Amino acid sequence: MATQGQVITCRAAVAWEANKPLVIEEVQVAPPQAGEVRVKILFTALCHTDAYTWSGKDPEGLFPCILGHEAAGIVESVGEGVTEVQPGDHVIPCYQAECRECKFCKSGKTNLCGKVRAATGVGVMMNDRKSRFSINGKPIYHFMGTSTFSQYTVVHDVSVAKIDPKAPLEKVCLLGCGVPTGLGAVWNTAKVEAGSIVAIFGLGTVGLAVAEGAKAASASRIIGIDIDSNKFDRAKGFGVTEFVNPKDHDKPIQQVLVDLTDGGVDYSFECIGNVSVMRAALECCHKGWGTSVIVGVAASGQEISTRPFQLVTGRVWKGTAFGGFKSRSQVPMLVDKYMKKEIKVDEYITHNLTLPEMNKAFDLLHEGSCLRCVLDMQV
Amino acid sequence: MATQGQVITCRAAVAWEANKPLVIEEVQVAPPQAGEVRVKILFTALCHTDAYTWSGKDPEGLFPCILGHEAAGIVESVGEGVTEVQPGDHVIPCYQAECRECKFCKSGKTNLCGKVRAATGVGVMMNDRKSRFSINGKPIYHFMGTSTFSQYTVVHDVSVAKIDPKAPLEKVCLLGCGVPTGLGAVWNTAKVEAGSIVAIFGLGTVGLAVAEGAKAASASRIIGIDIDSNKFDRAKGFGVTEFVNPKDHDKPIQQVLVDLTDGGVDYSFECIGNVSVMRAALECCHKGWGTSVIVGVAASGQEISTRPFQLVTGRVWKGTAFGGFKSRSQVPMLVDKYMKKEIKVDEYITHNLTLPEMNKAFDLLHEGSCLRCVLDMQV
Repeated sequence: MATQGQVITCRAAVAWEANKPLVIEEVQVAPPQAGEVRVKILFTALCHTDAYTWSGKDPEGLFPCILGHEAAGIVESVGEGVTEVQPGDHVIPCYQAECRECKFCKSGKTNLCGKVRAATGVGVMMNDRKSRFSINGKPIYHFMGTSTFSQYTVVHDVSVAKIDPKAPLEKVCLLGCGVPTGLGAVWNTAKVEAGSIVAIFGLGTVGLAVAEGAKAASASRIIGIDIDSNKFDRAKGFGVTEFVNPKDHDKPIQQVLVDLTDGGVDYSFECIGNVSVMRAALECCHKGWGTSVIVGVAASGQEISTRPFQLVTGRVWKGTAFGGFKSRSQVPMLVDKYMKKEIKVDEYITHNLTLPEMNKAFDLLHEGSCLRCVLDMQV
Repeated sequence: MATQGQVITCRAAVAWEANKPLVIEEVQVAPPQAGEVRVKILFTALCHTDAYTWSGKDPEGLFPCILGHEAAGIVESVGEGVTEVQPGDHVIPCYQAECRECKFCKSGKTNLCGKVRAATGVGVMMNDRKSRFSINGKPIYHFMGTSTFSQYTVVHDVSVAKIDPKAPLEKVCLLGCGVPTGLGAVWNTAKVEAGSIVAIFGLGTVGLAVAEGAKAASASRIIGIDIDSNKFDRAKGFGVTEFVNPKDHDKPIQQVLVDLTDGGVDYSFECIGNVSVMRAALECCHKGWGTSVIVGVAASGQEISTRPFQLVTGRVWKGTAFGGFKSRSQVPMLVDKYMKKEIKVDEYITHNLTLPEMNKAFDLLHEGSCLRCVLDMQV
């Protein structure tokens, strides 16, 4: 390709500082070094983690940076030693890497690869501990090892999943974060069995994906909890069978659920990132076996708490990141499931915008009516 | 038998009020009603739960009462409808009942039978919601459904395990609480696999039983943590391979353990009942898969806390009661294991006293050198 080995100048939405509107800038994207892949991003969605870092509340957030981690694109070029993808491959960038070599990947017990984390955690690439993004020579930090709010990005080869080229990128970009997180929380982390009673706190994209996963696992009751009753009607389509709005009750929500289920639910999922709700989600579980999974990401410094008696009497408290899916191995499988209509994706997309409208997309994220907004990055 | 159907007058150690020495009294023990079993207690040991309730710190503690829940004896008589034991059977009273009929027993997921809990929790028997103990007509409350600090006690038939009559009761009385709790935490709750790295906080009876269970499960490293280094030598005999005294380190103990184990332990067990230690036990677990089991019982009202990030990055927090063993079904199996020398019991008995020396036994409980003190109840 004409651009291979060259710096590419393209447009990106740059977060210059916390809580200030992103600015669409011309940005220089350096060629991929050894073990790196440069990807032309065609479509990206927004997720709450982007908004959290943008807000400045994340103490590890670095500015200026290029946010974005739920996207799809096409490989433009690859650096030395990259063997698993080549230019032209359709890919989904994966904020959770999978190297297949580290202690974590080899354990068979977790998807939390540690290979590139030391670099991606501080906004740079492993090779030279520098960024591939710059504007007039000034480096712009990477974000989550993906930075998909740019027309071109550079990622580590362990952070990119090659997918079926027939899959519509404007849809499957969602398989980069929220939908797999919800499905995997049910299938991989909780391992919900047929007949189970499930409670879902928060009916956004992740919560609805949990519902979809629970329905696929043949849960007998799927109880959706949200303080916005407007979300209930839509949630039915994803498998939620009952609704509870905590605002309709004087009792603590955990007690409401225990009463509603003859002792508590078998599995609960916190999909908000609120530490008080995490406690309620644990405490609404059935004594003896109820398992609560933390899916939402709480603000830095916040803590969860409960009486140890809750655990001693048989409840289990766990959490999940990217739903426990091994990214490079399993994202292509999720794409295939979508192509076979075994999982939903289209239904989560409530809005479509373009790169220049990035700030509007951030505003939409805070509206209850919005699940996922997909941006066409090449406009 | 001559005593069948009669009130038996015998001696018992009575806790008249919190934190006051127990008094050896003549107590009247009513005959067993339907579904009840009267047991002649031959040997009882003391456990920290007895001391906790005795101290008055347990808000659910009722006085006057007869404490004790780790014992062995012989059935004296049975009430109407009791079919699984008969006079002369050797038994271990079980504070954790097993009815085999309730939602919990039938679930196959827990040992926490709910059948008699509403009565035993308030110191009475199910049938008439009254006590079988009295002194000159004044009722004395039961404790944990067992009250083994009496020469005769009455228990529900779902709360008594029939054991091999050849087993020495002065030894196997320990299989009523502490030793099964530790072994089961490893085998049933954590399900420790061969090669695992295990950390044990607190090297009392329960902690040492965890070590024994971990050794039997072929753990590769068994790290004992205690603030009393005098306990380390004895712990070697139970399988502990390494020792850490938090007082020898400036860093938080969780960090010491993470450093010592290249990222954290696979399984940790809190065997003290201290909520700060429970947090450390969770946080010393390896990212991605480390599981922490709360075995110790914290004081009422205390809470555990941590950052949710600890769970989102793959650690699991759980707890155990009676090690997850189903009491009536599995205590006899543990007795058999002891008879076949597959598990230790004798080694936990550091002191032997008699019923009149009950208060001395309570004092011993707070000495580091004491594991279990067994009292001969018929002296």
